[in-house]
Amino acid sequence: MAEKVLMVVCDGLGDRPVDALDGRTPLESAMRPNLNHFAKKGACGIMDIIAPGVRPGSDTAHLSLFGHDPYKVYTGRGPFEALGVGMEVRPGDVAFRCNFSTVDDKLNITDRRAGRIRERTEELARSLDNWESSGVKVYFKEGTEHRGVLLLRAPGLSSEVTDADPHKEGEKPHDVQPKNPGAALTAKVVNDFVKHSYDVLKDHPVNKDRVKAGHKPANIVLPRGAGIMPHIPSFMERFNIRAAGIAGVALVKGICRVAGMDIIDVKGATGGLGTDMNAKLDGALKALATYDLVFVNIKAADLCGHDGDHKGKMDVVLRIDRAFSILKKDLPSDVYLAVTADHSTPVSVKDHTGDPVPLLLYGKGVRPDSVKSFDEVACAEGGLGRLRGFDLLPMMLDLAGRTEKFGA
Amino acid sequence: MAEKVLMVVCDGLGDRPVDALDGRTPLESAMRPNLNHFAKKGACGIMDIIAPGVRPGSDTAHLSLFGHDPYKVYTGRGPFEALGVGMEVRPGDVAFRCNFSTVDDKLNITDRRAGRIRERTEELARSLDNWESSGVKVYFKEGTEHRGVLLLRAPGLSSEVTDADPHKEGEKPHDVQPKNPGAALTAKVVNDFVKHSYDVLKDHPVNKDRVKAGHKPANIVLPRGAGIMPHIPSFMERFNIRAAGIAGVALVKGICRVAGMDIIDVKGATGGLGTDMNAKLDGALKALATYDLVFVNIKAADLCGHDGDHKGKMDVVLRIDRAFSILKKDLPSDVYLAVTADHSTPVSVKDHTGDPVPLLLYGKGVRPDSVKSFDEVACAEGGLGRLRGFDLLPMMLDLAGRTEKFGA
Repeated sequence: MAEKVLMVVCDGLGDRPVDALDGRTPLESAMRPNLNHFAKKGACGIMDIIAPGVRPGSDTAHLSLFGHDPYKVYTGRGPFEALGVGMEVRPGDVAFRCNFSTVDDKLNITDRRAGRIRERTEELARSLDNWESSGVKVYFKEGTEHRGVLLLRAPGLSSEVTDADPHKEGEKPHDVQPKNPGAALTAKVVNDFVKHSYDVLKDHPVNKDRVKAGHKPANIVLPRGAGIMPHIPSFMERFNIRAAGIAGVALVKGICRVAGMDIIDVKGATGGLGTDMNAKLDGALKALATYDLVFVNIKAADLCGHDGDHKGKMDVVLRIDRAFSILKKDLPSDVYLAVTADHSTPVSVKDHTGDPVPLLLYGKGVRPDSVKSFDEVACAEGGLGRLRGFDLLPMMLDLAGRTEKFGA
Repeated sequence: MAEKVLMVVCDGLGDRPVDALDGRTPLESAMRPNLNHFAKKGACGIMDIIAPGVRPGSDTAHLSLFGHDPYKVYTGRGPFEALGVGMEVRPGDVAFRCNFSTVDDKLNITDRRAGRIRERTEELARSLDNWESSGVKVYFKEGTEHRGVLLLRAPGLSSEVTDADPHKEGEKPHDVQPKNPGAALTAKVVNDFVKHSYDVLKDHPVNKDRVKAGHKPANIVLPRGAGIMPHIPSFMERFNIRAAGIAGVALVKGICRVAGMDIIDVKGATGGLGTDMNAKLDGALKALATYDLVFVNIKAADLCGHDGDHKGKMDVVLRIDRAFSILKKDLPSDVYLAVTADHSTPVSVKDHTGDPVPLLLYGKGVRPDSVKSFDEVACAEGGLGRLRGFDLLPMMLDLAGRTEKFGA
């Protein structure tokens, strides 16, 4: 009888020594009896999520944690931006990062960011979404501020096309060119979409209001950075297991979906600071009754890292630790638990860094080591040594008796 | 504001336990308070410069330390031999290892090493250097003893040619053949050069003197082992940083140059045992005022390793340690320091081995560990774990805030 796997990723948890904390990290400085309990009973190590010194994005990091080599499956930002704004993305879809921009009546670009528009872009996006051209389904969704995502769906599309966005002002939108004959349809549809966006947006009520208020109209969309979503083999295809993800952030949810997980929505669990961590771990325990692998992302520590807030990050650790009392109490004995991070977000840097992340692995049969606490410094001397992010999943599945022998 | 990076490579420093030192290594046995200071304050680990058990050459080792995969950029010994004898080598240049040899008047090879000639080869080489054939610039320089390097420069050369050297005596020089049509020009020029070398050398005053003294004349040059210098992207191209190298040995200087470093010549700093280590580290500190990355190679420990001289190697460590007092005193707080070796040269082996080398990493934000001294044994239990040589540079640049995120 095979066992089960629970992977808890505390987003951006890793940090560097903080002067205000006497040279300790926020994780080291926070009371964390429950995390330490699992560290003591289990084995610890550190992980380079992609490779030593490589700064992971949230997208490449989660691909790696799900056992994929991001250098092979990460095919440009477009499709992952689409996941990030909550669009459904299927293998073969081609997606583009876009700007809402301003053109004059001769189509010369006067502002690539449409006066840094921040409001009512969802209304503009809705008027462009769900269109069709030459048999290609066209989807569009707003992102933050002046940003948006264009997604094309049809058989035989290609990401080998140039940008419509000339990347500077004073020019007209560039005619999108196929880089090879197989990309002709894709190029045509993007060109059609750019024209269409002008036709629809130039007299859009939102733009009329903007002009009235003295703001630049967001009267055209300029796509760039085409990327095609590869087929990422699912957990079922790879390991014959049922996998579920619990996450608040759209990008992480989207990557769970393309990796072949079911998404479990948990009440009160968001991607924000106020997320209900207990609800997430409760939800994970429930999901383990029907799934072989459950993944949980808790975003909050990353937000404090980006804000440079070491006190906030310590507080997040306290809350994560309290939530872990649920696992201490109720984790079934047939479950292997990993606790780690997708990257470091040091409060001194306010961005992701390539510093390795702490890792603990707990469950029946895990060889113990002498590490007694869960933090970046203690785990670095643990029995698991220094691993890569994409090593974690195979290790857990092997412990759980879910992998095939290589050879005889 | 991004920080800076100082990488100090003590050539051949790594060793194995020495019986005469009660089973300790020369590094372990020498007083090294300054190196230990940085080990205590920083983090330590060990590195396989290329891969576990792979014996690095000085060329492949430094390529790896500069963040390149030597299996990708090391394109045969020719171009690196050329760097080793101090020739300028540019991307696209094709270089050959050569022997001065002896032929009789029917061009049969009677001695592939020209009586193991040791003297006045620079006079012979000078008479062959700076020639031209079929529009190809031809350079030649002597190496140690009977060795030399032939370098061809022109657009469109190829390393896909056979050897002129038949690798045995009693035969005539082989006619160099192109392995594909694109190598025809290269083959022709090498054949021209072999003939030319005989024409120039057969009555050369040096050879007249040799024959008079009863020695075999060095009356022909036999090239072998063609290699083309690849384009190795510079530090500026890869990371947008200015890099400088301080080294005494021609090969290391040459690799610094092809990797895109400026070479800083420091008075008294040689590649020999008597090198002025203080001058090198002083020079490094000065260079850090204008460069983002400074690399220093200190050769002396390797020489003692090759000589099997454990006392000499301990003495070199003492001198290196004393020089490090300069860094202890004056290393700016915005500099990340790494101290390591390019390979082990155990005194018991008298050659490079694949044993991992010790590594220490020091600077603001480096997570501490419990290692208190800098040596092969202590570092093996450090918080950095076990890394590859080409991981070091990305890790340092990540600490210094000099890298791009992979993904979003």
